[in-house]
Amino acid sequence: MISRQELLERDQADELAFCRDRFSIPEGTVYLDGNSLGVLPKQVVSSVSDVVIHQWGVDLISSWNKHGWIEMAQRVGDGIGALIGAAPGQVVCTDSISVNLFKVLGAAKSLQPDRRVVLSTVDNFPTDLYMVQGLSRLLGEHEIELQLVEEGELVDHINESVMAIMLSHVNFRTGALLDMLDLTKRAHHAGALAIWDLAHSAGALEVELDACHVDFAVGCTYKYLNAGPGAPAFVYCNQAIVQQVTQPLSGWMGHAFAFEFDSNYTPDAGIKKFLCGTPPIVSMACVEAALSAFDGVSMHAIRAKSIALSETFEALLRDHGLLQLLTPVHSADPHTRGSQLAYASDHAYGLCQSLIERGVVPDFRAPNYIRFGFTPLYTSFDDVWKAVEHIVQAIENEEHMHPRWREKLAVT
Amino acid sequence: MISRQELLERDQADELAFCRDRFSIPEGTVYLDGNSLGVLPKQVVSSVSDVVIHQWGVDLISSWNKHGWIEMAQRVGDGIGALIGAAPGQVVCTDSISVNLFKVLGAAKSLQPDRRVVLSTVDNFPTDLYMVQGLSRLLGEHEIELQLVEEGELVDHINESVMAIMLSHVNFRTGALLDMLDLTKRAHHAGALAIWDLAHSAGALEVELDACHVDFAVGCTYKYLNAGPGAPAFVYCNQAIVQQVTQPLSGWMGHAFAFEFDSNYTPDAGIKKFLCGTPPIVSMACVEAALSAFDGVSMHAIRAKSIALSETFEALLRDHGLLQLLTPVHSADPHTRGSQLAYASDHAYGLCQSLIERGVVPDFRAPNYIRFGFTPLYTSFDDVWKAVEHIVQAIENEEHMHPRWREKLAVT
Repeated sequence: MISRQELLERDQADELAFCRDRFSIPEGTVYLDGNSLGVLPKQVVSSVSDVVIHQWGVDLISSWNKHGWIEMAQRVGDGIGALIGAAPGQVVCTDSISVNLFKVLGAAKSLQPDRRVVLSTVDNFPTDLYMVQGLSRLLGEHEIELQLVEEGELVDHINESVMAIMLSHVNFRTGALLDMLDLTKRAHHAGALAIWDLAHSAGALEVELDACHVDFAVGCTYKYLNAGPGAPAFVYCNQAIVQQVTQPLSGWMGHAFAFEFDSNYTPDAGIKKFLCGTPPIVSMACVEAALSAFDGVSMHAIRAKSIALSETFEALLRDHGLLQLLTPVHSADPHTRGSQLAYASDHAYGLCQSLIERGVVPDFRAPNYIRFGFTPLYTSFDDVWKAVEHIVQAIENEEHMHPRWREKLAVT
Repeated sequence: MISRQELLERDQADELAFCRDRFSIPEGTVYLDGNSLGVLPKQVVSSVSDVVIHQWGVDLISSWNKHGWIEMAQRVGDGIGALIGAAPGQVVCTDSISVNLFKVLGAAKSLQPDRRVVLSTVDNFPTDLYMVQGLSRLLGEHEIELQLVEEGELVDHINESVMAIMLSHVNFRTGALLDMLDLTKRAHHAGALAIWDLAHSAGALEVELDACHVDFAVGCTYKYLNAGPGAPAFVYCNQAIVQQVTQPLSGWMGHAFAFEFDSNYTPDAGIKKFLCGTPPIVSMACVEAALSAFDGVSMHAIRAKSIALSETFEALLRDHGLLQLLTPVHSADPHTRGSQLAYASDHAYGLCQSLIERGVVPDFRAPNYIRFGFTPLYTSFDDVWKAVEHIVQAIENEEHMHPRWREKLAVT
């Protein structure tokens, strides 16, 4: 059995422990929901205040040049790129994952006009599937067709009818991690493109887009990148193909010379072609400030701590036999999961709510999943100890079965 | 000749004068660029601070329900709707004008599958044209074709080949105002749809979307709505057609039951179907706060003061004969222009820069336009006096012809 003393000692020895002070963690809360909305980095507070009060408030329109708003999408994109194995000039911070996926799907089609299948998994995050369905309705199924298979059956379906595989690196429900290198290689072998959604991996584990020769990737910044609710997402296009592709959301920010106000669209030659409209500067300034929480930290160290946290959590909980683990944490290879653990329970919603009342914040996903996310920059081993103690107590007291939890509220 | 004393008296008598105190106007600045980026409303400072520090920072993920983030797009949309003649339930605040136009163009096509011409003007704001071009490249010119004519020739080209007219209510360069009621009526008479871009009219003048039976509209919030750089835009769909239309950017926020995580997209029946990805809450909170600057103010009063400000500006400047007016201000009918005046000059860029050095902020638009915008909520008649004095002095001193202005910088 692991003792609390042992975990307090691990916190003492933790090389990332100093990062916790970069975040504003509410008193008395054990927050294990950074996989849905990351905690507020302190740097965001002063940065947003500066952008609103001084840049917008005083320097007004001149800030587009004076404070670099006009290059912010690329500057922040490069900052994100550094955390996901992308050399500069291949990532922009812009729009939402959904909108960026539409661009990327259009771009993939521009490279593969004679293929139509977008291969994905039945359990991919719904909006990813919805965006393919939207493009398919617009162009017709003879142009774009969504094909869904189980994760384990992917390799059997990557063939020469596939235009692109479109996969989430980490499954939003189970936390299962797909093999980016292998699947991308298999896609390329079949002449298909590889599109990856990094929503649950960017900032949580080592992602190597360039090394895996990924074609396109998208991701959000409000989970493990801690940039705040709905902060702008990002899109990656490999420099090997960026010049050839066109994307359909051809707004002025992606124009080669936006301020010449030409009535004909000429795309920028590089990653800037994936920009569309005027970006939300205040929300993007949150992304820029939030990235500074990663200063001086390696993704290798983050991943190592993430695995240690989740292994500790699962080991503590396993002895009680109270919940059915979904995440493949028992696998000998820790590279088969992301930075969350998911459990199935008929009382998942009630358990989630009763834990929140106790100051432990996991989240619930319909129909019966409870997820616990670990964010190595601010989650401590003692947090894990406390969380498990509360879970055991809540279940022993049958708090999770209380009638008031019968109604399932919409929680994002 | 108008005297300064006379203008100071007009400020004294101005029924909107009390609104100026709702804004944070930099000391010593006469800001006439609200048509590009509106001035910071004081309410935004405290609201953003609350959203970041308390809602995100303390209540974290629970804020989606607790602080109404999940309905924010519709709540803010209704607030905008009240300023543009739209009954509740027809506007959502989301994405950018560019992205929203793509949705609307797709929705128009879903209603008019057998028509292909999108009729617009050669001098429409470029990103509007680029979005049609993007859709046209994706679907082929046999499905969507952009046709551009001069503003004065529009009525001759509205015929039964037209799928939709897509027009800016106020021309971004000249400030010319198109007749929404008449052109919409003509479009409908030809069986076409009417799409209006309100970038330069929302918050600046009386817009009557419902009364004009407009089908779709888009607009931004960072100009006359003062919501800050790149703040989320809005989209309007008339309730008479919203149930029938589908739009291609079918992200999860537009799903009828987003949190059931179904793998098939089912659009919301109403305006929510125009939402796509997760919205940038911090930037949208700026929109919500900025709208409060309109509390207790009628658009009629705003429009009346706007006309008075611009007529005063033009009358003062006319006597000097220094600049060539582009905006149709001389027309007997003041309803032929928006809330800006535009002048052409070979030295437009230099004049703009030399005025900025003097603390008067207009803006420059390539190749040779200088624009002066009037925002009745915070622009005073004395501002107009000071601006004209500086223009006359700058030109008399030949500051605008100084060699250092030879290079034209990109200014948004």
